[in-house]
Amino acid sequence: MSSNTFGKLFAVTTFGESHGPAIGCVIDGCPPGITIAPEDFAHDLSRRATGKSRWTSQRREADVVEILSGVYQGKTTGTPVALLIRNTDARSRDYADIAETFRPGHADYTYWQKYGIRDPRGGGRASARETTMRVAAAVIAKRWLKEKFGIGVRGWLAQMDDIAPDLPAGAGIDFDVVESNPFFWPVAAQVPELEGRVNALRKAGDSCGARVDVVATGVPPGWGEPVYGKLDAEFASALMSINAVKGVEIGAGFASVSQKGSEHRDEMRLDGFASNHAGGILGGISSGQDILVSIALKPTSSIMLPGRSVNTAGDEVEVRTKGRHDPCVGIRATPIAEAMVALVLMDQALRHRAQCGDVGEVKPRIGRRQS
Amino acid sequence: MSSNTFGKLFAVTTFGESHGPAIGCVIDGCPPGITIAPEDFAHDLSRRATGKSRWTSQRREADVVEILSGVYQGKTTGTPVALLIRNTDARSRDYADIAETFRPGHADYTYWQKYGIRDPRGGGRASARETTMRVAAAVIAKRWLKEKFGIGVRGWLAQMDDIAPDLPAGAGIDFDVVESNPFFWPVAAQVPELEGRVNALRKAGDSCGARVDVVATGVPPGWGEPVYGKLDAEFASALMSINAVKGVEIGAGFASVSQKGSEHRDEMRLDGFASNHAGGILGGISSGQDILVSIALKPTSSIMLPGRSVNTAGDEVEVRTKGRHDPCVGIRATPIAEAMVALVLMDQALRHRAQCGDVGEVKPRIGRRQS
Amino acid sequence: MSSNTFGKLFAVTTFGESHGPAIGCVIDGCPPGITIAPEDFAHDLSRRATGKSRWTSQRREADVVEILSGVYQGKTTGTPVALLIRNTDARSRDYADIAETFRPGHADYTYWQKYGIRDPRGGGRASARETTMRVAAAVIAKRWLKEKFGIGVRGWLAQMDDIAPDLPAGAGIDFDVVESNPFFWPVAAQVPELEGRVNALRKAGDSCGARVDVVATGVPPGWGEPVYGKLDAEFASALMSINAVKGVEIGAGFASVSQKGSEHRDEMRLDGFASNHAGGILGGISSGQDILVSIALKPTSSIMLPGRSVNTAGDEVEVRTKGRHDPCVGIRATPIAEAMVALVLMDQALRHRAQCGDVGEVKPRIGRRQS
Amino acid sequence: MSSNTFGKLFAVTTFGESHGPAIGCVIDGCPPGITIAPEDFAHDLSRRATGKSRWTSQRREADVVEILSGVYQGKTTGTPVALLIRNTDARSRDYADIAETFRPGHADYTYWQKYGIRDPRGGGRASARETTMRVAAAVIAKRWLKEKFGIGVRGWLAQMDDIAPDLPAGAGIDFDVVESNPFFWPVAAQVPELEGRVNALRKAGDSCGARVDVVATGVPPGWGEPVYGKLDAEFASALMSINAVKGVEIGAGFASVSQKGSEHRDEMRLDGFASNHAGGILGGISSGQDILVSIALKPTSSIMLPGRSVNTAGDEVEVRTKGRHDPCVGIRATPIAEAMVALVLMDQALRHRAQCGDVGEVKPRIGRRQS
Repeated sequence: MSSNTFGKLFAVTTFGESHGPAIGCVIDGCPPGITIAPEDFAHDLSRRATGKSRWTSQRREADVVEILSGVYQGKTTGTPVALLIRNTDARSRDYADIAETFRPGHADYTYWQKYGIRDPRGGGRASARETTMRVAAAVIAKRWLKEKFGIGVRGWLAQMDDIAPDLPAGAGIDFDVVESNPFFWPVAAQVPELEGRVNALRKAGDSCGARVDVVATGVPPGWGEPVYGKLDAEFASALMSINAVKGVEIGAGFASVSQKGSEHRDEMRLDGFASNHAGGILGGISSGQDILVSIALKPTSSIMLPGRSVNTAGDEVEVRTKGRHDPCVGIRATPIAEAMVALVLMDQALRHRAQCGDVGEVKPRIGRRQS
Repeated sequence: MSSNTFGKLFAVTTFGESHGPAIGCVIDGCPPGITIAPEDFAHDLSRRATGKSRWTSQRREADVVEILSGVYQGKTTGTPVALLIRNTDARSRDYADIAETFRPGHADYTYWQKYGIRDPRGGGRASARETTMRVAAAVIAKRWLKEKFGIGVRGWLAQMDDIAPDLPAGAGIDFDVVESNPFFWPVAAQVPELEGRVNALRKAGDSCGARVDVVATGVPPGWGEPVYGKLDAEFASALMSINAVKGVEIGAGFASVSQKGSEHRDEMRLDGFASNHAGGILGGISSGQDILVSIALKPTSSIMLPGRSVNTAGDEVEVRTKGRHDPCVGIRATPIAEAMVALVLMDQALRHRAQCGDVGEVKPRIGRRQS
Repeated sequence: MSSNTFGKLFAVTTFGESHGPAIGCVIDGCPPGITIAPEDFAHDLSRRATGKSRWTSQRREADVVEILSGVYQGKTTGTPVALLIRNTDARSRDYADIAETFRPGHADYTYWQKYGIRDPRGGGRASARETTMRVAAAVIAKRWLKEKFGIGVRGWLAQMDDIAPDLPAGAGIDFDVVESNPFFWPVAAQVPELEGRVNALRKAGDSCGARVDVVATGVPPGWGEPVYGKLDAEFASALMSINAVKGVEIGAGFASVSQKGSEHRDEMRLDGFASNHAGGILGGISSGQDILVSIALKPTSSIMLPGRSVNTAGDEVEVRTKGRHDPCVGIRATPIAEAMVALVLMDQALRHRAQCGDVGEVKPRIGRRQS
Repeated sequence: MSSNTFGKLFAVTTFGESHGPAIGCVIDGCPPGITIAPEDFAHDLSRRATGKSRWTSQRREADVVEILSGVYQGKTTGTPVALLIRNTDARSRDYADIAETFRPGHADYTYWQKYGIRDPRGGGRASARETTMRVAAAVIAKRWLKEKFGIGVRGWLAQMDDIAPDLPAGAGIDFDVVESNPFFWPVAAQVPELEGRVNALRKAGDSCGARVDVVATGVPPGWGEPVYGKLDAEFASALMSINAVKGVEIGAGFASVSQKGSEHRDEMRLDGFASNHAGGILGGISSGQDILVSIALKPTSSIMLPGRSVNTAGDEVEVRTKGRHDPCVGIRATPIAEAMVALVLMDQALRHRAQCGDVGEVKPRIGRRQS
């Protein structure tokens, strides 16, 4: 219910500011018996981390996870799992001169209007630093989904600025390629072009937007709760809650607008669906096909090019953002988007089990010819 | 919490199937003292209704609202407001022959997989008939938002198939035009073209998709709850929960992907923001600008053109949808999208008041030069 | 979440005022496949109803249940089950002269302070008429608990005024006796004494309090969610929410205060617990023993003896309650208390299944020698 | 919603095991602008702490609070306030030999049945150590309630074993006396008797129960949400969720059973209520009178006297609890009960403000002659 909690049954409450002493989360409702150790978080946290390449912010955080509760002898016990990460590379002095200024495109003005007070250091609670704990919590969700159902959740950068992956129509994504470059880009040959674009933006003091796609494979049919807790509605909320996201699509998304019904509706055969414009969801419930979601991320607002704004004193001022920033926030968004998809699936799995039980599948379940 | 309830504090629980005896809703948490009468629902329900023109389904429902509770001497009392509408034009015989068949693009298969049982009459709970109660509940929300804050929530059809409004760049929407045609289209001269397109689709036994835009004006800065209850996250969830919606955008939406930071970030001056790519939301909190949201609706899946599918017996079958259907579900989606935007705003208004009080605005609040 | 909704997963939202057109409820999260028909509600509603004997209020309501949704071909479908009962014997004229007066011991003054408006007819929303829908919703819960787990939930009047059941120490309750008299009293020979007491109170224009005990048998070990969703905490909330309840006990209850640890703690043997001071709950989780809860109900405030009060004009006035009232509200409280116990168990069953699955019991489960 | 979260709007999520590395909480929904510093928690935490006198467990925890988030320059910012306390005096070796044994009267058996796994060190999550964070969170609630409304929440030990305070009928509580002895006892002259009783129990290897009373003064009329979120229902849930509590009373509580209506109903005059059997709550809403709640606490189950039980291997065993335990858990329960009352009031204050606004009081509000 509270706004810093995600999920109804697998409920993840996050806390912490960008430059406060620590960030953390509490996972309530976690099934007992899941094997988890502090080092299990390292892989995904590293994928999200800054400071690893020239293409992202240079802030370097160790992101060491301490498990404070809910795990005994290496297994979850069913009680709240609390995770803590100390902030170690916060440079609040970078923000001293903007404490009274509202940076354009940031939450400075709106937090101040809402609360009458704000923590200006590094964006405070509005910083993408918060997403670290989403990724951490999702490590547990991903593991459970994989072990219990064979579900996989994978994402990639599907557009950066006006650059799209140079892939043949209908080609699958090679995730080895995606994981081999800091852009999560599915075509290795294009990486130099991406590097060039980021360098050019940096030089110009500017930034660009991006699109991230995520696919969830192996999701059983029947997950999702009509009508306001629809699976796609929860993906939309989860993904739109990520910093800088301005749009969410399921399956064909906005392309549906100019489709015909005879084209969009996915015909069914005994060996599976004939297409997947629905993105694996019908009536808010998973169909057993691959689940396909996409997000649009706006260009970073923190850029060197000066911008006009106002301050708390009521003066018009010019803002030129210093500090360490990403030229394209979308580059690191892939693991975050994956995390939110995994958290939604985990929560819906428990909700489905609550209402409908684990009584096995309804027959006939159609095949997986194409998804 | 429950999945047929929308909103945390202004909590709307809907019930009812397309061809059951009735549909209804219970609004809990409604502020006391709001003037409301059964006839106040007629205008918006009529905008959403089928059977009024040749361009929508021919089902004709009177949609007479009975107020069962929560109103005394014409005013809300603070106790649950229950609204009831009897279904009067349900023709379940239309669906007898598809009780065992899964229509492509529909929720038939997924409901059956989830629950092991489904009400096949008119799509049961998955029918857009359910959205009637969203519109009804939003009548109360719209009134309160208008009377207390001067907020207006208005939508229009922004694309149908490949037809876009023929408006000069930067032109505003003339809502008198929007309300003067059954398409909610903002350019009167194009209405014959829309009619022609729908006629052609009907003749071909096919359907098309659509895009709906909604603007909320007059929303004070400060509404929205970071980080998972962000205003845009809740719009995303609310809008994606509408039948047939496959995408949601806030402000610039997917166009942000190929924007530069220097273009997207909205500069601020004392007389207002210089642009509104953000769509009136920064960091999940309203900025005081107009709120701009858009949705993509898929083409109707119920079409006369035959499609391949399977049935509960495990046979491959051919489906040819009979019954009364919309050739473009997006045509009637405008009042539904408005309703969901209003419900989100109402709920967030109460949530903001709970945490931050009614203590007045923080200064300086910048102007409204452009929104 | 909303205050007129009970339960997190088996979520019952009730609505309606004592003298409004109808009362009703919406049950969301109901498991699919439960057989239910309108006539199944009659038995428990009749047990709760007024007007059946001289010992309760003379208001006579038919309490005919209409199922508006969520049931198809006699079975629940997993979508919201809406139940409606029309009020037919409301006599609002009885209340005209108290619309401006706050009756002592009633919610008149507090509703008015909270909302600034109140429906004075029959107590409006604060009337025990609301509990009708709790009993109706619990009919479904009781059926599921019985069929799936063999759970039984039974209550009886355990004290009325200063009259206690004349039972030998350790004697069990004979529910045939309980159901054979309108007091739900477990000792048939005492019924004339109860009748005499009620007659004397009526003659004196006064009323008395009561105590109701409820036992739930067959509850598996492991239900309940520490730490704030403890099984006993939820019973406490559920039972205290019943009109007129002023106290709740689990197991030994207030007698624990003067017990020793060596006496209170229930020793365990392989064939079962040696005693049940805990009332079947340890650490907020069911132990597999019988669950024992008790409530105290205050004497009816609506009595013929005049009382001093104030009115909305700010005058001191004398109030003499007319209308049709129970001389002891506790007499009809037994089915209501049972209902709330059943609703808590149903909700916790689903919550347990969500987190821990249906994977079978942990061994060894100790026996049921004594509970 | 999640079970380790208390409150809907002032939502306190606690985590941590008795002998884990730390305990903590996250407070979401906290109003901005509340002044708070780490040292502000010391007073109430010290009142709850063990190891301060001979009459409680000898475990000595420093209970140093670290504020991890949500506070900037000494004031709450409206974002989640996370509090952390490291465990420093955990002696898990005390529990090694009971890891496989279910202690009678404890949650050992039920946690194991529920989760199939449990942390046996010091009772794990079921330990009263968890209540530390309730007291910490309530420090903020108490401050806000005091500063904004003048509300005070005070408790005392109202019975220990069969010893009741030797106070004249109708006498008020002298809280200077209550705070001057480790029993929170309101009669100084009886403290030696209490000491003697505890010494005798220790010598006998036994324990006893207790009763704690709490009064909240200054609560405005109008707080509380009918019908399932009634103020008294929430007190019942909050207090029953405290370890060892077996009963809750509001106002006259179980004494209501043998009262007459003419006695129980509190008459109203312009200068106030004539009595307070209701305990300050009518129809689930505060009346403006003092709020009076009482709880029964069972005797400590961890005693030196051997008890019969079973173990995970399915053997019958004899258990003799070692470790450091309270001879009467009720002695330290006073600040915990106060904390839960304060948390309920804080949450209901925000909920009332959400629905009904801060628009000021309804007239006439009757006086405070007697409460």
